[in-house]
Amino acid sequence: MQFHHHGYVSGDPRVRPAAGVGINRPAELPDEVDVLIVGTGPAGMLAAAQLSQFPNVTTRIVERREGRLPIGQADGIQARSVETFQAFGFAERIITEAYRITEMAFWKPDPADRSRIVRAARAVDDEMGISEFPHLIVNQARVLDYFAEFMANSPTRMTPDYGYEFHGLEVGQGEYPVTVTLAHTAGPNEGQERVVRAKYVVGADGARSKVRQAIGCTLAGDQANHAWGVMDVLAVTDFPDIRTKCAIQGEEGSILLIPREGGYLFRMYVDLGQVDPATHHAVRNTTIEQIIHKANEILHPYTLDVRNVAWHSVYEVGHRLTDRFDDVLPDQRGTRTPRVFITGDACHTHSAKAGQGMNVSMQDGFNLAWKLGHVLEGRSPESLLSTYSEERQVVAKNLIDFDKEWSTMMAKKPEEFEHPSDLEDFYVRTAEFPAGFMTQYTASMVTGSNAHQDLATGFPVGKRFKSAPVVRVGDTNPMHLGHHATADGRWRIYVFADAAPAGGQSSVADFAEWLANSPQSPLAATPSDADPDAWFDVKVVYQQPHTAVDINAVPAVFKPQVGPFKLTDYEKVYATDPSADIFELRGLDRGGVVVVVRPDQYVANVLPLTAMAELAEFFAGLLKPRQGAGQPLTV
Amino acid sequence: MQFHHHGYVSGDPRVRPAAGVGINRPAELPDEVDVLIVGTGPAGMLAAAQLSQFPNVTTRIVERREGRLPIGQADGIQARSVETFQAFGFAERIITEAYRITEMAFWKPDPADRSRIVRAARAVDDEMGISEFPHLIVNQARVLDYFAEFMANSPTRMTPDYGYEFHGLEVGQGEYPVTVTLAHTAGPNEGQERVVRAKYVVGADGARSKVRQAIGCTLAGDQANHAWGVMDVLAVTDFPDIRTKCAIQGEEGSILLIPREGGYLFRMYVDLGQVDPATHHAVRNTTIEQIIHKANEILHPYTLDVRNVAWHSVYEVGHRLTDRFDDVLPDQRGTRTPRVFITGDACHTHSAKAGQGMNVSMQDGFNLAWKLGHVLEGRSPESLLSTYSEERQVVAKNLIDFDKEWSTMMAKKPEEFEHPSDLEDFYVRTAEFPAGFMTQYTASMVTGSNAHQDLATGFPVGKRFKSAPVVRVGDTNPMHLGHHATADGRWRIYVFADAAPAGGQSSVADFAEWLANSPQSPLAATPSDADPDAWFDVKVVYQQPHTAVDINAVPAVFKPQVGPFKLTDYEKVYATDPSADIFELRGLDRGGVVVVVRPDQYVANVLPLTAMAELAEFFAGLLKPRQGAGQPLTV
Repeated sequence: MQFHHHGYVSGDPRVRPAAGVGINRPAELPDEVDVLIVGTGPAGMLAAAQLSQFPNVTTRIVERREGRLPIGQADGIQARSVETFQAFGFAERIITEAYRITEMAFWKPDPADRSRIVRAARAVDDEMGISEFPHLIVNQARVLDYFAEFMANSPTRMTPDYGYEFHGLEVGQGEYPVTVTLAHTAGPNEGQERVVRAKYVVGADGARSKVRQAIGCTLAGDQANHAWGVMDVLAVTDFPDIRTKCAIQGEEGSILLIPREGGYLFRMYVDLGQVDPATHHAVRNTTIEQIIHKANEILHPYTLDVRNVAWHSVYEVGHRLTDRFDDVLPDQRGTRTPRVFITGDACHTHSAKAGQGMNVSMQDGFNLAWKLGHVLEGRSPESLLSTYSEERQVVAKNLIDFDKEWSTMMAKKPEEFEHPSDLEDFYVRTAEFPAGFMTQYTASMVTGSNAHQDLATGFPVGKRFKSAPVVRVGDTNPMHLGHHATADGRWRIYVFADAAPAGGQSSVADFAEWLANSPQSPLAATPSDADPDAWFDVKVVYQQPHTAVDINAVPAVFKPQVGPFKLTDYEKVYATDPSADIFELRGLDRGGVVVVVRPDQYVANVLPLTAMAELAEFFAGLLKPRQGAGQPLTV
Repeated sequence: MQFHHHGYVSGDPRVRPAAGVGINRPAELPDEVDVLIVGTGPAGMLAAAQLSQFPNVTTRIVERREGRLPIGQADGIQARSVETFQAFGFAERIITEAYRITEMAFWKPDPADRSRIVRAARAVDDEMGISEFPHLIVNQARVLDYFAEFMANSPTRMTPDYGYEFHGLEVGQGEYPVTVTLAHTAGPNEGQERVVRAKYVVGADGARSKVRQAIGCTLAGDQANHAWGVMDVLAVTDFPDIRTKCAIQGEEGSILLIPREGGYLFRMYVDLGQVDPATHHAVRNTTIEQIIHKANEILHPYTLDVRNVAWHSVYEVGHRLTDRFDDVLPDQRGTRTPRVFITGDACHTHSAKAGQGMNVSMQDGFNLAWKLGHVLEGRSPESLLSTYSEERQVVAKNLIDFDKEWSTMMAKKPEEFEHPSDLEDFYVRTAEFPAGFMTQYTASMVTGSNAHQDLATGFPVGKRFKSAPVVRVGDTNPMHLGHHATADGRWRIYVFADAAPAGGQSSVADFAEWLANSPQSPLAATPSDADPDAWFDVKVVYQQPHTAVDINAVPAVFKPQVGPFKLTDYEKVYATDPSADIFELRGLDRGGVVVVVRPDQYVANVLPLTAMAELAEFFAGLLKPRQGAGQPLTV
């Protein structure tokens, strides 16, 4: 965390000075905004939090409810999401209060007496060490609280505008082409409509999205045919794995048991069987008593004495998806750029079984928000916005396919499996997917080709940048390279040096010289009145241990002078940790390599140190030609 | 973190429900209080934070200033303090914002040209892995902020009472025997005195303590004879180790360089030489320009271009100590128990060089506060309070001796050392002391004998309980056993099992049975209307890996039923982590051993599983005979 460079900060350094539209931010929703986000779920809140870092972009997020969500239904937090929370500064706090999944147990009928369940297997949750972050369970409401805190502490001082319901929108012309009709849901103006004009609208308004409806998208997919009762309860039981995630397949049906945060609460998804199409809605009337009764049947010989019910519901599994995530119709592609986007459940609905919904939704928001920020700030052309739907629709399709397979397996009877261990085998085999790391964006204006992938085999182009240990030269601190990449909207250029030490002639010295001084360098686009690292965070990692790196000999581009006092930033120069060599761990070429990472943490390009022209060309499509000085991103 | 067991908690689980005196806590300082703490420095704030956990104890903390401390001067945070912060729930957050010391560099005159300094050595800060917690530098003001947050979130909803200055006190008779005279330092009543009557008073009012004066204590020790200029600055320099802690000994004098949090700020202690007794105070007039000039001379050939001064001062080193930390005169010892205590700088002053002051002061507060809580709640006899002065005076004496040696060495000229590496050798050799882990309390009513120390060689009686990895059986989570010990004022009884697995006859089963059911068991003192673990947090660690521990076979005392729904607490049953076996790491006897740990985290006793009588006897002196039901500590 870097601060004090504009003068001594006495209080919490997480509270950044107000800047831009955050200075005297109007408490009331204005008539004109740059971005209007509809809905304060995980996708909307992440998008708002990301946009809150752009001091000159007016973003407002409206919500039907009158205030904060008290109980959220989603609770599964994959490692990729915790990695994302780290970028937003609250990973360590949410880890502390969450339930952590380290194993999953599989219970089946006892072959000797099929009326009794027995533990058949245990599976370690992240056996392969996919991530340094844990797999968590924590109420969605807390995730939203942390995003709310982050945006309130941001330069733009954002807070949600509660008590507004979305009624409709029209896309026209002009500076604020989207005319949105909202209505007050509470207060003296309850029921009264009001109009807000926006440059862009983000529909994060859930499975029954009215924004989706307004842009003519529909969810398509299979019908629900299997019902589950879900309950968050406090209970006394002799079931020994009550604090472990379990898939329980008894003769009487299945239970997915998810222990919850705090040490006592747990969630059960209790199989209510196939839905009879003739009495389609009857299952929805299943009472909590019936769900508890069914759970006791499945758990036999164990019993469950429920003492308190925090929440319960009945739902039928459906897998549905929209074919586009923005307002550009297929026949308009290439002729116009989008003005309205949909995210999260508005685009994709599926079972809750794999604990994916909130996670994929947040990545929708992360993918979209920085692009909006860059376009609105004038850094990037509007065409950047077309990549959102292209990238995320595929991810959602993969999710639906995965979840369909998993939830079908969860609903199977034990005897329907070909091999008794099919369920746990599938769970272990596919672990990377539910952990959130199978997303791989394909080549586009924001993602380069994999022509030079062999120079950095551990940083696949299009996948998220997988952090690894390094040592910071200036303060000798061992750290994770990727954890310094916060959600500040900046591109990152990681320069992994050739074998020569700092100082003297080398490929990295030539590259650094070009990066700092060439008019073709992407850094040349940085506004002259901003810090030199305002748009691009350039870091170097030497192959030597830190004691062998002479910081005074490191090229200047890796030690920018920042802030009003033009102080040296020493936090961009790294060395190899001999106990965990990043060059070995990530398959980096000893001749050096440049790895470009997007603001949403995905690897955008892998290039040799000599590929200045290719790097310039990649960013040429992403940066608008310089027209006078823009506004600095970071303050 | 455990919550939800009284029903669903929607918001931040760190904000605990108000209870006892926290319900409708008066905003104004009342006329009668249980504990009055004078001063909101580290010792006072820690004591207040600890007492804030006792719902039926009225504690108020008064402060001269009108509000929060804006810039604190202390900044060194030893690993023991971070361990303490972990117990107060804010270690991870303060680590994130702090500077972390991982190495120290030693600079000396270049033998080839003594006018130039060169790096002579580097020393790893915690080479031996003394602690799993880091060594940090962070402004004292932030430490106080976190304690303030903790107490505000506590059941008692404590906040400091700003704007009161201490004028004097008298110890008399009655329920509130200490009559304290305060005066308003601001507001409409400025200058006006008011009287508060307290059961106990804690003087945490710094080196010029008026509470110390009121109880007739005086600081004794050597005179100051060496002056240092200290400055917190933002600067540009070519000194390559500017972000590393350095001891710099140049021909022109010495500098202790302490990089500060945030990546840019640093502190320098600049040697201003011996103080001429004739012109004693002249050195105090040294200007910031003179300090900067001197620093440049010492740093030659490097230069320092100071761009912004956050704070600076001149001080002379003095080492002074009081011979007692409470109001009981030597000839009164044994005839009465103390009513007034002094802590921190009020008891001990010394140089800032070893970064010890704030740390030792906080441990003063930690040592005292739980004792006050236990006496005021009626758990323990008043004699417990006499152990505070006994225990902490010795620690302060050791600190003074250590600091005298270190600061004398820091002030030496390079040629005055017998061996060139004397300074760094001393630093490495004594690392455990400044890290805060050399404190070892001797036998007293709160600390048992070391008769059975051989059963647990890694948990020395009287030293702080050094955590080690274990696996929690219920949720299969790997974790640090000690990190579950929060600052809740409870005694902890760690039961390390004999080799038998859970279930069937074994020493641990017999011990558990006695602990749960014997009238001689310390647990029998727990109020009947409180949770069974309200006073004693009893945990078991089995020798088997977690997959071999049948939680249903674990004795009931390790699975208490808590809260209004009598839910099972599954977080007290642990197994051995095969990759880091706590029995091996801490030298635990395979026949089992009981380790008793005090609320301030110090090992109080090590006993065999068969030593029920000794355990009962140990606690007999610490627990008042049961007189009706007390109040539950935890809610």
